[in-house]
Order: sequence, then C-alpha cells, then structure tokens
Amino acid sequence: MVQNKVMGLIVQKYGGSSVADADGMKRVAARIVATKRAGNQVVVVVSAMGDTTDELIDLANQITPIPIGRELDMLLTAGERISMALLAMAISNLGHEARSFTGSQAGVITDSAHGRARIIDVSPGRIQEAIKEGAIAIVAGFQGVSQDTKDITTLGRGGSDTTAVALAAALDADVCEIYTDVDGVFTADPRVVPTARKLKSVTYEEMLELAASGAKVLHLRCVEYARRYEMPIHVRSSFSTNEGTWVVKNQPEGDIMEQAIISGIAHDKSEAKITIVGVPDRTGVAARIFQAIADADINIDMIVQNVSAASTGLTDISFTLPKSEGPNATSTLQRIQGEVGFASIQYDDQIGKLSLIGAGMRSHPGVTANFFAAMSEAGVNIEMISTSEIRISIVCRAADLERGVRAAHTAFELDGEPGEAVVYGGSGR
Amino acid sequence: MVQNKVMGLIVQKYGGSSVADADGMKRVAARIVATKRAGNQVVVVVSAMGDTTDELIDLANQITPIPIGRELDMLLTAGERISMALLAMAISNLGHEARSFTGSQAGVITDSAHGRARIIDVSPGRIQEAIKEGAIAIVAGFQGVSQDTKDITTLGRGGSDTTAVALAAALDADVCEIYTDVDGVFTADPRVVPTARKLKSVTYEEMLELAASGAKVLHLRCVEYARRYEMPIHVRSSFSTNEGTWVVKNQPEGDIMEQAIISGIAHDKSEAKITIVGVPDRTGVAARIFQAIADADINIDMIVQNVSAASTGLTDISFTLPKSEGPNATSTLQRIQGEVGFASIQYDDQIGKLSLIGAGMRSHPGVTANFFAAMSEAGVNIEMISTSEIRISIVCRAADLERGVRAAHTAFELDGEPGEAVVYGGSGR
Repeated sequence: MVQNKVMGLIVQKYGGSSVADADGMKRVAARIVATKRAGNQVVVVVSAMGDTTDELIDLANQITPIPIGRELDMLLTAGERISMALLAMAISNLGHEARSFTGSQAGVITDSAHGRARIIDVSPGRIQEAIKEGAIAIVAGFQGVSQDTKDITTLGRGGSDTTAVALAAALDADVCEIYTDVDGVFTADPRVVPTARKLKSVTYEEMLELAASGAKVLHLRCVEYARRYEMPIHVRSSFSTNEGTWVVKNQPEGDIMEQAIISGIAHDKSEAKITIVGVPDRTGVAARIFQAIADADINIDMIVQNVSAASTGLTDISFTLPKSEGPNATSTLQRIQGEVGFASIQYDDQIGKLSLIGAGMRSHPGVTANFFAAMSEAGVNIEMISTSEIRISIVCRAADLERGVRAAHTAFELDGEPGEAVVYGGSGR
Repeated sequence: MVQNKVMGLIVQKYGGSSVADADGMKRVAARIVATKRAGNQVVVVVSAMGDTTDELIDLANQITPIPIGRELDMLLTAGERISMALLAMAISNLGHEARSFTGSQAGVITDSAHGRARIIDVSPGRIQEAIKEGAIAIVAGFQGVSQDTKDITTLGRGGSDTTAVALAAALDADVCEIYTDVDGVFTADPRVVPTARKLKSVTYEEMLELAASGAKVLHLRCVEYARRYEMPIHVRSSFSTNEGTWVVKNQPEGDIMEQAIISGIAHDKSEAKITIVGVPDRTGVAARIFQAIADADINIDMIVQNVSAASTGLTDISFTLPKSEGPNATSTLQRIQGEVGFASIQYDDQIGKLSLIGAGMRSHPGVTANFFAAMSEAGVNIEMISTSEIRISIVCRAADLERGVRAAHTAFELDGEPGEAVVYGGSGR
C-alpha cells in the first residue's frame, strides 16, 4: 500500500559566510540533506563564497575604475556559479542528487538595471521539474536575466534573500528559511545589548521597520516581497539547529499574549546629517531643494525644518542621508546655492539613529513619553524625531547611540538573560 | 559620400597565459581594438585566466574526489565568465563597445558528454547582432550548452581553440587567429632544437599529423574542425606583432617552391608502452585483447606484433598509449589474462615518440632510409615504427628522444639561425 505522506516544499537560503570554505559547504550540505530526508522537497538559494564577490570587484578595479554594468554583472555572477556547483557536489557526495541552476536557468526574470535589477517574474519550470524528479535544486542567488535583452543581471544588496523569497512564492513553498550567522531576529543588536532576546515571531510590518531602521538580519526588499506574497520567512542560524524567528503576517495567538509593546530596537550609524543654514522661508524653496536632491538620485531619510525667525525670514533645514551619498548631496546643494539663496551647508557624520519598533505602540500612547524620559535619564540628547504608526526614531550623537539603545531596551522591559544571543561570524549578501 | 570599405570579419582566440593578469588583459584589449580600428569586425574567444581552471578543480577536490560531471562543468565555466567580462571591461576602457557572451549565449550547442562535449551546431545570432551594431563580441571558450538537457557543458582539451574555429566557420569569418605564447608553428620544438625555424604555412593534413604526434601549438580537434570547414587558421603570438604560421588547405605557390620534404618534427614523451608477452598466436586473440582495451575507453596509438616463434606458437604484442591510461589498461588486461592465456604484461613508461611530418614525403621515397640512417648515427635505437602517407613515427628510449629530434632536424636540412624562435610563457587550454 502506498503511504500518502504529507510533503513540504522548503526553500532555504544560505549566505556567503555559511559556505565560505569546503567545511562550510559540507556542513550546509548535511543540513540540506537532513531536510530532504525528513520528507521535504528542497530548493536552496546560495550566495557566493565568503569574500569571492569582493575579490571579483578587486579584479575589475585593476582593469578599470568604472566597469560597465553589463560586464560587472557577468563577472560577479561567476561567484554564485562557483558556490552552487560546489554545494551540488557536496550534496551528491552524501548520496542525494542535486542540480545547480543559474538565475537565468531558474527563470528569475528581471528588468535591465544592471547592479540593482528588480525581479519582474519568476518562471521556475526547470526547478519544478528537478524537485519532481526527486533532486535537490540549488539556485544561484543575487542574479537573473533581463526580460528585454536576455543579459545577465544582478539584484544588488539583499539580492540573495530576495531571490529566495521570490522563488518560494513562485513555487508556492510552505516556508522560506533564511540561514544567517545569528539565531534569528533579536530585540536589539546583541553586540550592543548583551541582554537582547530572540523574538519567536515578528510581523512583516515590524520587520520592514526594523530593516529600514538599521537591523541587518534581513533586507528590506526581501521582507517587502514576502509581505506581498504572504510567504512566511523563518530566519535562523546555519551554525545551530535552534528554532529561529518567524516573520509572518500575524503573530500567533500565544506570541501576542506575551507580547511587549515594543518588539525591537534598531540602531544605525551609517547616516549623516546635512543642515542647510539660512534658507529664505518662501513657498517653493524647500521643494526646489529636495527636487535637486531627488534628481541627483539621493535617498534621504528624516527631514526637519525649524520655525523661521520672524525678524529675518530665514530658516534652517536638516535632513539625514546615507554617508555614502554625502559628497554627491553637498555638491548638488552647492550648485543651487546661488539660485536658492541660502547661507551655508553643514555636514555632520557623527550622528546615530535609534528606532523603537512595535505593533503594540498603536494602542499604547505613552510610548513616546517613556522613551524620551529614558533618553533624558541616560543623558542622550535628541536632535531629530520621526515616527510612523509602529515606529519612533530619533537622531542623537553617534557617541551616545549605544548607551541610548541599552537604556531604551531596559525601559521597555526587553532585557533577557545576558549572553542569550550568539553571533557566529560575518554576514553574506 | 559613403565610402565602401571592404571589411573583414576576424575571429581571434586568446589563451589563458595571454590574459593571466590585468596587464595581460590590457595588452590583449589593445590588440583587439587595433584590429577593430583597422576596419574589421572582431569576435574574440577567450580562455580562463592563467591558473583559474586548476584553482577551481582544487576547490572541487576539497569537496569530493569524484565531482559530478554536470556540476564540474558548471564550476569550471565560471573561469571564462570571469576572463571574458574583464576583457570586455578593458576594451570599453579603450573607448570601444564590447559585449561578452557565454558559450550558451553565443549559440554553441553540444552533446551532453560533460567534460568532453562535442559541438553539434553553432547558432551565433546574438554575436551577429552585436558585431552588426558595431560592438566587439567576446565569447567564452571551452563551453557550450547541451542540445537535449540545456545543461552547461565543457569541451575538454583544446576546447577554446575549437570554439574559435567553430564560431569562425559559423560566422563565415575570413580568418581564425589563434594567439599563443610562441610565434607560430616551428619545424621542431624550439626548447629542444634551438635552430628550429618558424613555418610560413602548413596544410591541414600536416598540422593534423603534427598535433597528433605531440606538437602542442594547436589541438587536433580544432584542426579537424578547420579542415572540415576550410577555415584558415593564423597561429601567432600575443606577445609580438610578428606574422605567424598559416594553417590552410593548400600552401601558397611561393611557400611550396621553397618547401623542404619535411615540414616539421614532433616529439612526445606522454606515452607509455605495454607489451603482452607470450600471446597464443591464434585467430581472434588480438581482436579479443583490443576489444577489451576499447571497451575500457582507452585510446591506443601504435601497435606492433612480432612474428611468432614457430617452436612455441606464441607471440608478443606491444602497443603505446597515454601514460594516464596505464593503470586502467594494465588492470583491464589482467582481468582477461586467464581467458586469453598470455604469459605476462610489461609496462614501460620510459619511451619517447619522434615523428617526421611533411606532405613532401609523398613524392620522396628515400625519406625513411635517410631518417633511419640519421637515428643510427645519433645512436638512437628504434623500437617501434608507424607511418602514414605524410608521417613516419618511431618509438625510442625517452633518454634518446631529444638527441634524435636534433639529429633528424639537421639531417632534413631544417636548421635555421639559433634563437630564431622565442617562447614567451606557458600555454592555455
């Protein structure tokens, strides 16, 4: 009699630090095979090994300071090609059939924006065929093929996570497991807050706010994709077998019962602040400034405009942006200084951003007051504020940031046992 | 007024030693651009950089001693992907558009024999489009895509040269230029014979015999392909601008006038000799032995069977084969020893093969006598002999081989000025 066993379809994604060398490959292969032996169909998305991508970029820079996007993508995709073939070999070695597929072969169709392509469609016919035939499919993360020109593209930052979620959605998988070097999503960065606790689950909205606020564990794009297709993500460590953190539409009942008002605290030291001093307080001036910034393709984060002094009719405008965009932004502003007529530009890269995230704050109006009191007690001066329905962010001095994170973590009763979180290594792409 | 300039279409192939590092890439790029600026359409086939292939094989061996063919091909093709993208960047840097294409993108269709796939068809639509639009096309050598399974394949030894000739034939190119680390095809290996001279031209037939007899400059498969499609090959150095050697159907009149009887001398130390001692001299015994060898997929070269001694009815059979096949051949023979009833097997890997090649020997019956006299004078003992219409090969002691090559070179008046030949480096795949 044939047994009707309920099979799951699991997509697993392993980052570059998990497959950095032969030992890592073998450990990951054993894990994949265990999942297969447990009765599941398994599709694996893998990043380039360890530092491969950086080494390839170095090679390109030896040739030219400004590599053509099409060719840089052709070059970088060699990295996943190497890791996926080796991983397939490691799995075969354990007695299971594995077939590797490039992004193109896996049907990852993108637009033509080399280096930061967006996934338009996923047609995983070859993957479905492979898993139907009992094989484990290994797919190159971070890459696809452009719909128009059939050229190889890369997806940019977070590309491998996004590949995994997109593939999971197209295959109607039961779960997308993202393996990383930490045990899951924590109430704060364990390197800053030793008493940080692992979250059992977190909603897509909270995870989006955490990722946008500096939490590195998952990339914004991948969470956005998961939310759109309601694909559950299980973030867990490739170095342990511990249950990780589930990223889902709604938290399970049990988790809600014990839920704190704040799910987590994120911090970010990668931003700088630009202050435009002495801006004429006339209609259209701010619009002109931010249009110029947008035209220069610069993403800005928080904006604050002071009330103008009645005596002068002048005001100051401050905004934050990634430090990497600083030079571009200042030169863009200098170009329009004459036209707009402001006095000067100040550039400050010694800032930090601290964000409280939690769906619970919707129903708890006192959060802001508690938060500001905690910052005041910790001697952290608040320079800028921005909020969403489930997030409060502040900008402070970079030197005060970690102290602020610890103070907020304690104030909102997030502290667990010290050393609960383990950080195993670097992070992949 | 539009000038009607006669444009040529040139396919150039650069080996791994020519693009071993950034400087090599830039030098090759400059050469390609010069060819383009001279008014030609240019398609370039490139091998993996320097030792990349060996490094990738090392990686595979860290995972498993017996990598799956499909995945090894997937792995190794990363090598050309890297070199072709970098070369395209180096060309762009010189102000010309270059687009790189994988074997699959270039339409190189093969059978499914991973690691030694044969080209079935070339459909270079994307290449034609690229060169029509004025771009230089860079194509990965050594690789293709299988017709049946759409899997990535590699062509094995000589694969990049073969890719170049096959592409040149499919594009109806005017010439296929094979760039290497020597100035062309020489009358003998310049490292052994310092007075070796560069040949202006050589026929496909002669080049086939040279390649089959141990000359490394061109691979047999590539010459076979060129002969089938009558594609002229120009073998030349990537380290100089000297005219190289043309491999053509018929030598030009001028070259024939000055042609020696012998075009060149090849030698080979890669073979071993197996002697099967005391074989019963009955019908079908030799056939049984060589069927077993063939079934084990072993390629043999020369065969000699002694006249059997009337007293015993036993004979000895000797044959040569690549040293790498020695263990396989001896174990195969041991398996059939009982059935066939021979006495013993002798394995000798201290042999050398020396071959005289020249279309001129068709009309000069004295060549063999002169050759054997020269060997005798040089004290080289001849152990085996085989001939074709345009080749005489002998097997001798490995220790005598180079002395024999120099003696034959002098005897057939091939000597030029010492040091005419320059050897620049290693050789690619």
